[in-house]
Amino acid sequence: MASVEVIAVGTELLLGQLQDTNTAFVARHLADAGIDVYGMHAVGDNRARIAEAIRASLARADGVVTTGGLGPTVDDLTKEAVCDALELDTELNLPALEQMRAFFAAIGREMRENNVKQAELPRGSRVLTNPHGTAPGFVAFGRDGKFVACMPGVPREMKPMLEGLLIPFLRERYAVREAIYTRVIHTINLGESEIDHRIADLFRSQENPKIAVLAHEGQCDVKIMAKAPSREDAAVAIAPLEAEIAARLSGHVYGIDATTVEEAIHAMLRARGWHAASAESCTGGRIAAALTRTPGASQTYLGGIVAYDNAVKTQQLGVLKRTLASFGAVSEETALEMAAGALGRLGADIAVATTGVAGPDGGSPQKPVGLVWFALAEAGGRAKAWKFDFRGDREAIQRRATTMALGSMWKFLRE
Amino acid sequence: MASVEVIAVGTELLLGQLQDTNTAFVARHLADAGIDVYGMHAVGDNRARIAEAIRASLARADGVVTTGGLGPTVDDLTKEAVCDALELDTELNLPALEQMRAFFAAIGREMRENNVKQAELPRGSRVLTNPHGTAPGFVAFGRDGKFVACMPGVPREMKPMLEGLLIPFLRERYAVREAIYTRVIHTINLGESEIDHRIADLFRSQENPKIAVLAHEGQCDVKIMAKAPSREDAAVAIAPLEAEIAARLSGHVYGIDATTVEEAIHAMLRARGWHAASAESCTGGRIAAALTRTPGASQTYLGGIVAYDNAVKTQQLGVLKRTLASFGAVSEETALEMAAGALGRLGADIAVATTGVAGPDGGSPQKPVGLVWFALAEAGGRAKAWKFDFRGDREAIQRRATTMALGSMWKFLRE
Repeated sequence: MASVEVIAVGTELLLGQLQDTNTAFVARHLADAGIDVYGMHAVGDNRARIAEAIRASLARADGVVTTGGLGPTVDDLTKEAVCDALELDTELNLPALEQMRAFFAAIGREMRENNVKQAELPRGSRVLTNPHGTAPGFVAFGRDGKFVACMPGVPREMKPMLEGLLIPFLRERYAVREAIYTRVIHTINLGESEIDHRIADLFRSQENPKIAVLAHEGQCDVKIMAKAPSREDAAVAIAPLEAEIAARLSGHVYGIDATTVEEAIHAMLRARGWHAASAESCTGGRIAAALTRTPGASQTYLGGIVAYDNAVKTQQLGVLKRTLASFGAVSEETALEMAAGALGRLGADIAVATTGVAGPDGGSPQKPVGLVWFALAEAGGRAKAWKFDFRGDREAIQRRATTMALGSMWKFLRE
Repeated sequence: MASVEVIAVGTELLLGQLQDTNTAFVARHLADAGIDVYGMHAVGDNRARIAEAIRASLARADGVVTTGGLGPTVDDLTKEAVCDALELDTELNLPALEQMRAFFAAIGREMRENNVKQAELPRGSRVLTNPHGTAPGFVAFGRDGKFVACMPGVPREMKPMLEGLLIPFLRERYAVREAIYTRVIHTINLGESEIDHRIADLFRSQENPKIAVLAHEGQCDVKIMAKAPSREDAAVAIAPLEAEIAARLSGHVYGIDATTVEEAIHAMLRARGWHAASAESCTGGRIAAALTRTPGASQTYLGGIVAYDNAVKTQQLGVLKRTLASFGAVSEETALEMAAGALGRLGADIAVATTGVAGPDGGSPQKPVGLVWFALAEAGGRAKAWKFDFRGDREAIQRRATTMALGSMWKFLRE
């Protein structure tokens, strides 16, 4: 089995100023591809130390994967360190240069001298193109056949490079026979301990496929991991387990694998030929942002009102001044009128509304920080409102309220 | 200056199943205490590999700080590995035993045999008591006077142990007189390579204070790090450099240290007694979400319209059907009418608008994916519109357009 070590480069990591999430992401994908990770390291922007770390890792493993230090600035030294460690010089890599030219052309900026330098790669390297940024990645090779794969540190540049180019390259190179294939069951509005309670027995009895529960903000994913020679074999092993788990969590499973709850919502709206609208106070546009994340959202989402100020609630959503005066902005009545207003004003088939106290200020004994009223309304009359007390800071409350609104919208559409 | 390496122990880290946040936390506190971190590592629950990692780190640094692997289970092997690396046996540590007895008494559980084992520490160790859990931490010493400090992996147990016991011990042990003080200059709408181009010379000439450039989405932070005996001395060292950098990046610096661009915008709005509104199409609520992230945003942000559908643009923002028909939704004219509509309908002093093609579909030769029109309008008439071609996938385009809108809103308020 091939073994690899992962090195993150950046002085800000050593100073604890930046939380490295790249290394765990890389490790997870290597593990899934059936490649063993022996160790993980972080070093500063210091040419000698980076080279030393690479040499030390190569002494233990078949290869090294690095993130960071590929930028155009003088403290980006990963490439130089790789050359030192593998005793290679650099050469201008034409595919890399081409890709960068295209990138700069696309963003309408001129390419600078220090950008051109980015296309000089260790001699004999295989380029890993970077459609999302200027710095190309590459795989350099030592005389002993070991490799050093270098990727940028910016996650949105690194991730597609890893998944699309590096992992396939490594699987082929090491003719990995067995890989881990995973199937993720997405649930919403169900606590981790409740899920554990419902499927703990499966958990314990299973070695392959393995089961893991990953909790996010108000959502839980149940991960089924099967080690198998092919996706087909894995599917056969996973299917019965997936069916059993889905049955035990029924009513909360909104999707499988890459699906997001927004995608599940759009799919149901499309199926009904419906259009949705939103009316947000405390979530401040986060529901709209989530619903517009999905490509093609414009076919099923009309838009929404971010009614942060009470005047916007009355004028743009038709919430009655009387309602605000007697029940307050954070109330069942206001939430329902906001949803009804969004329905009517935007001509939607379904509308979701939120109004709450995100904090840190603005709380009261009756309406503490974290209290959020939700409403869902459907053209034709069906409507519901409910409240929830969220814990955490302002950001956590806004995020969790958004997740609950989406999860409930999904359930509302299912009923 | 004392130097340390940090090692996180746990196989789940190597599998990427757990995101290690302990190491960055430890590193930040060591840096602030004036202790150099040379390297960070993660190793699995393997006695030989942990011992090897400790030896390797001690060859480079004065000491090692580990987190994890101190529990009572069979795969908790950090203590054994420390004994191997430092060639020490264990002894029952009475203070540690006492603290554990007290802990179990407090939670009303009886102490088990395997718990007693946790009180056996490397001979001559200094115990780091753990009021929040069963596993005591400790500092073990080698014959060469180098140390290995071990703490539990549970953050809630590790953090108080680090801050309350280990950091004070290390500062005293190494009579640390200097610490690192940082100052962060936040810039917007300026590329990393452009910044590098403007300040590279300062970069190279500086050892203390050090300069680092950190790039985020369309934003760059320039970090000035001074090693000094006190915050006052650091300020003196940083001030002239900060002034020089601010001058070279002038027009793009929106804040210092913890400030975000939203906070800078809210501060300027507050200073003028102004209220802002937003009209978003392609950014789908992200500008609203950003502006409502700041506590107290309700005093300066009224709300906004997410006008995803053209009917919402006309009905909620008063965009003329004629404008949409002759220029299209993604046009200078529509962007200006959206901003004017948000101003008027919401009664704001300033409004920002976005309309563009986020993709992946909906692009055309004239209006390709990534084209976004922006508009800013001020009560009283001043208005401007401009377009930008963004690169990347749907999410990147939405995110970058949001950042540019906020950055431009900030500049617009400054002028």
